[in-house]
Amino acid sequence: MGNADGLVFPGTEVGGLECAHRVPVPPTRPFWETLKANLKETFFPDDPLRQFKGQTTSRRVVLALQYFLPILEWAPRYTFAFFQADLVSGITIASLAIPQGISYAKLANLPPILGLYSSFVPPLVYAMMGSSRDLAVGTVAVASLLIASMLGKEVSPSQNPTLYLHLAFTATFFAGIFQAALGFLRLGFIVDFLSHATIVGFMGGAATVVCLQQLKGILGLHHFTTATDLVSVMESIFSQTNQWRWESVVLGVAFLFYLLLTRFLSKKNPRFFWISAAAPLTSVILGSLLVFLTRAEHHGVQVIGELKKGLNPPSFGDLTLTSPHMMLALKTGIVTGIVALAEGIAVGRSFAMFKSYHIDGNKEMIAFGMMNIAGSVTSCYLTTGPFSRSAVNYNAGCKTAVSNIVMAMAVMITLLFLTPLFHYTPLVVLSSIIIAAMLGLIDYEAAFHLWKVDKVDFSVCMGAYLGVVFGSVEIGLVIAVGVSMLRVLLFVARPRTTVLGNIPNSMIYRRMDQFSEAQAVPGVLILHVDAPIYFANSCYLRERISRWIDEEEDRLRPKDEGSLQYVILDLGAVGSIDTSGISMLDELKKNIEKRGLQLVLANPGSEVMKKLDKSKVVEAIGQEWIFLTVGEAVGACSFLLHSHKPGVAAGGATTPSDHHV
Amino acid sequence: MGNADGLVFPGTEVGGLECAHRVPVPPTRPFWETLKANLKETFFPDDPLRQFKGQTTSRRVVLALQYFLPILEWAPRYTFAFFQADLVSGITIASLAIPQGISYAKLANLPPILGLYSSFVPPLVYAMMGSSRDLAVGTVAVASLLIASMLGKEVSPSQNPTLYLHLAFTATFFAGIFQAALGFLRLGFIVDFLSHATIVGFMGGAATVVCLQQLKGILGLHHFTTATDLVSVMESIFSQTNQWRWESVVLGVAFLFYLLLTRFLSKKNPRFFWISAAAPLTSVILGSLLVFLTRAEHHGVQVIGELKKGLNPPSFGDLTLTSPHMMLALKTGIVTGIVALAEGIAVGRSFAMFKSYHIDGNKEMIAFGMMNIAGSVTSCYLTTGPFSRSAVNYNAGCKTAVSNIVMAMAVMITLLFLTPLFHYTPLVVLSSIIIAAMLGLIDYEAAFHLWKVDKVDFSVCMGAYLGVVFGSVEIGLVIAVGVSMLRVLLFVARPRTTVLGNIPNSMIYRRMDQFSEAQAVPGVLILHVDAPIYFANSCYLRERISRWIDEEEDRLRPKDEGSLQYVILDLGAVGSIDTSGISMLDELKKNIEKRGLQLVLANPGSEVMKKLDKSKVVEAIGQEWIFLTVGEAVGACSFLLHSHKPGVAAGGATTPSDHHV
Repeated sequence: MGNADGLVFPGTEVGGLECAHRVPVPPTRPFWETLKANLKETFFPDDPLRQFKGQTTSRRVVLALQYFLPILEWAPRYTFAFFQADLVSGITIASLAIPQGISYAKLANLPPILGLYSSFVPPLVYAMMGSSRDLAVGTVAVASLLIASMLGKEVSPSQNPTLYLHLAFTATFFAGIFQAALGFLRLGFIVDFLSHATIVGFMGGAATVVCLQQLKGILGLHHFTTATDLVSVMESIFSQTNQWRWESVVLGVAFLFYLLLTRFLSKKNPRFFWISAAAPLTSVILGSLLVFLTRAEHHGVQVIGELKKGLNPPSFGDLTLTSPHMMLALKTGIVTGIVALAEGIAVGRSFAMFKSYHIDGNKEMIAFGMMNIAGSVTSCYLTTGPFSRSAVNYNAGCKTAVSNIVMAMAVMITLLFLTPLFHYTPLVVLSSIIIAAMLGLIDYEAAFHLWKVDKVDFSVCMGAYLGVVFGSVEIGLVIAVGVSMLRVLLFVARPRTTVLGNIPNSMIYRRMDQFSEAQAVPGVLILHVDAPIYFANSCYLRERISRWIDEEEDRLRPKDEGSLQYVILDLGAVGSIDTSGISMLDELKKNIEKRGLQLVLANPGSEVMKKLDKSKVVEAIGQEWIFLTVGEAVGACSFLLHSHKPGVAAGGATTPSDHHV
Repeated sequence: MGNADGLVFPGTEVGGLECAHRVPVPPTRPFWETLKANLKETFFPDDPLRQFKGQTTSRRVVLALQYFLPILEWAPRYTFAFFQADLVSGITIASLAIPQGISYAKLANLPPILGLYSSFVPPLVYAMMGSSRDLAVGTVAVASLLIASMLGKEVSPSQNPTLYLHLAFTATFFAGIFQAALGFLRLGFIVDFLSHATIVGFMGGAATVVCLQQLKGILGLHHFTTATDLVSVMESIFSQTNQWRWESVVLGVAFLFYLLLTRFLSKKNPRFFWISAAAPLTSVILGSLLVFLTRAEHHGVQVIGELKKGLNPPSFGDLTLTSPHMMLALKTGIVTGIVALAEGIAVGRSFAMFKSYHIDGNKEMIAFGMMNIAGSVTSCYLTTGPFSRSAVNYNAGCKTAVSNIVMAMAVMITLLFLTPLFHYTPLVVLSSIIIAAMLGLIDYEAAFHLWKVDKVDFSVCMGAYLGVVFGSVEIGLVIAVGVSMLRVLLFVARPRTTVLGNIPNSMIYRRMDQFSEAQAVPGVLILHVDAPIYFANSCYLRERISRWIDEEEDRLRPKDEGSLQYVILDLGAVGSIDTSGISMLDELKKNIEKRGLQLVLANPGSEVMKKLDKSKVVEAIGQEWIFLTVGEAVGACSFLLHSHKPGVAAGGATTPSDHHV
């Protein structure tokens, strides 16, 4: 073993048995203190009360108000220059909000006017409570579709429109309550469980489904399936080919082409973002004029028809908190609420990142919740921060949430005076607007990136996509979340154990499968565990580690490299351990001793040390066999290997050499 | 910064920018290869095919047979000395098996004779297929109770005994299929998700419930609630105080005292284990004699009554695979099957550990499954390896599974000739036997140990216990598993991030909260993340890390220690990362640069490096800012800090000193 000594010296030099560092057992803190600390880490990782420290009471009140109403914090610093920017962006998003609002309302099988109502009250609430400067509030396609599919299962929007409407309000109310509750209970992290991969797949699937739904409008069909899955949509389309109206097909395709063209142009030259931003409104105007002039509504082109003037009527009385359908509304509210949250917060965070300001997830949830509660009693349905609208807002150079106020004002004026103009707006145009918006949501590039970087994430993404397209929106969501959870559990259930080797001329020990230059240390097997040791993996680890030892001995037996005598367990990556894990280590120690080997622990974390100590396993293993680093552990072992038999040093463990070599 | 130089030298000495080790990007392996490796690690961690390598075909056939029928492997080496030991232990466990079998059958509301049937066929099957030498096969109280409570919900054993009996057989059949399937599909690790804490709490709760049920027998009541929770049991007992029979109370208490006394004696002096082992049979004999002589059955002491002679009748025709109740049987089979597996495998493993031989979980599952399938068609109900019986077997010095064969033979003889003797056996004695056995299962010491070592595990344990006692057996199980899962998810959702400091006169960096002597490095913040970076925690980590930076800068501002310039992220414990984690690192890098700081990575694992590389984040961060160890990273940073402004070295990052100090 020529290079052995070369390996030994750096070890003994710094970490020989005599001058090695000891791993201290952290002082035991009282139970409640630990619990408090853990709860704080879990629920207040951002430490929101930090700013309150050492402030006068009056100041604290102000800070508290500013916490819940961020407008109080930035309004004083608001300038005219800001207002100019916000005015422009506000009008721009309004021109997008009006047609989109109407389209999405129809997607949710709700009266079109609700789309406008929903772009009036909620934005005002968010402007006061929201902490994002770029988020533009409004209804979104996916949530609208979800409402339609979930409520539609039990109540038909055509046969029982009033009940359906009331249930939509109630669902919005519950969604608001749920969102606000999540925020107040600091459960923001629940949203984090919807991974990026999940959202990509889910959004893509939803977009696909929404586009399919629009074929109804494009083809000018009167009857259409309520199911959202690919199969039944295709069936209901090709079962009534005789119903297809070429007029509306022509109109629809023309406008779709126009919308995509403008988007393409804006993409090529960002200065012209407003072209694509204004495109929906212009196509609505063009479409309406066309129909008005050609009387096309009598030739199979369906139009919006009467939109009644006036602002949001109160809908507090419409909340159905008693009827047998309440549970349905509750379920719908929770599902749509969490989906809306996921989109809104994701959007808010990404723009906050561009401009590098911070967004408090829990605070945002409260804002979303409040805006939906307010909306539910003023004839609005579920709103959040749609990506498309927020992107336009950002491109239009908005500075603060005032752009939302401007949008709301524009919508108010529309509601008061301009609704009649939408009488002749053809539905097919709305369909084209939705399709154009949805095509932007199918992020195949992201999916490809997932495939390239992480196959598991890709399968999560595809699971969500296929689940939504062939099953239903809920199924897709369940599949995606399920697979994601399974991945986490599997990581813990099957932790990777790897053999470490010495990086030549250093005291560094690294995975031999990762570092080709790493060399094994004769007589010593160094194993690295890279996950917490829990009940879920303790049995696996025990068996896997003993298999490593078997294989090592098989490897050594033929060669004359001397026999295995020490097993070093590198616990550096073992972040946490439970009682099953502790007893696993205890058993492992016994088994290894039975084989005449010595177990050595390296670099255990404080939690591990604490529990090893409390459960008396430290004594069993022996403080002298626990080292601060792998290097020092190896140093000590090699030192003993070359001085005298380990048995003597290990205190009692019989030397294995006879029955192994 | 007096001690700064002292810290810098060890760094630059080994890990100055010029002589630092580079972290290689591992070669990309083809997708299918990786997948294969992962699947193998997940499903074949014990590598069962290892022994087949390089063997002749004929030898392989033999090995395969030995794999499924371990008896072929050890039978040739069986000696007469072994047989003597197995004979003694076999007879001992038989004397325990007969009364226990009858008692548990009554607990499951099944004909008492089934208890004897179940101790005849299954043990023979297990003797051939099982790989444990100490496991004694038989019915268990918990599973019997579960069958009673789950089947009893839909079918009354008193009003419709035949259907109830058939459903019990069917449930056993499904349990067997399920167990064998788990084994064949290599899903053994599912059992590992029942943690030690769960089992302690669950068993304790079940034992408590079973004892409560026995009050029926002790008090000599005729009518009793079918519910198992504490409240309704107490109600049904105190609602009929006038029905209590003092005769049976006296008998019961007397025998209970006798049983506990013998156990106490055996505990004090293990040589007399057979006293407590034989106690149940002796008390059955005594009880029967007493009743026979005193005609006590006419004075309110209920007796077993007629037990028909003869071996197990076939029950294949009784399996109800069509009736509306099949789903019930299926559900019962799966739940009881997994509970039985958990107990049996836990028992087998622990005894295997004492005698240090290996038990293959998946193989055991196949054996259990087969024995239950065989049982279900020969009038047996669910069997597994009960702890009490196996412990007696072990103490009696059994050598191989032959002790099970001996027991089966003894039971066979009983079935053929001795059943009439049990006619006068009073039920109250059976109740005392069950209670005595159950009291041993309430492991309050283990619970206390859990409290001392790990509060979470303790709450899991108590959750299971209280759930079983106040809810139902299933509820307890669900609570316990749920809490355990939550713990795993929370560990991933809220990973610990800690600041590392330098251990004086070394290149070692450790948690400053764990090592009091560790010292911060001026101008450098070293953060350690000790969990995989996943979608579930990427948002949290981003915010938490930026908070660490805030706090560090707050700490530095007052003092004149110079400003923060480098943030080193120790990824040594980051075992795995997904795309959300990758993009988190990317954003983090951007944010940190915006603050004029430089992000440095230390010790990334191969998976992390691979994904960082694939997603082009390595280029973004810069290979030169990724180090093999924290020591080298610090060395490089301090080196730059003292030579020239980091901005220059970092290439573009503006130096922060001006706007921070």
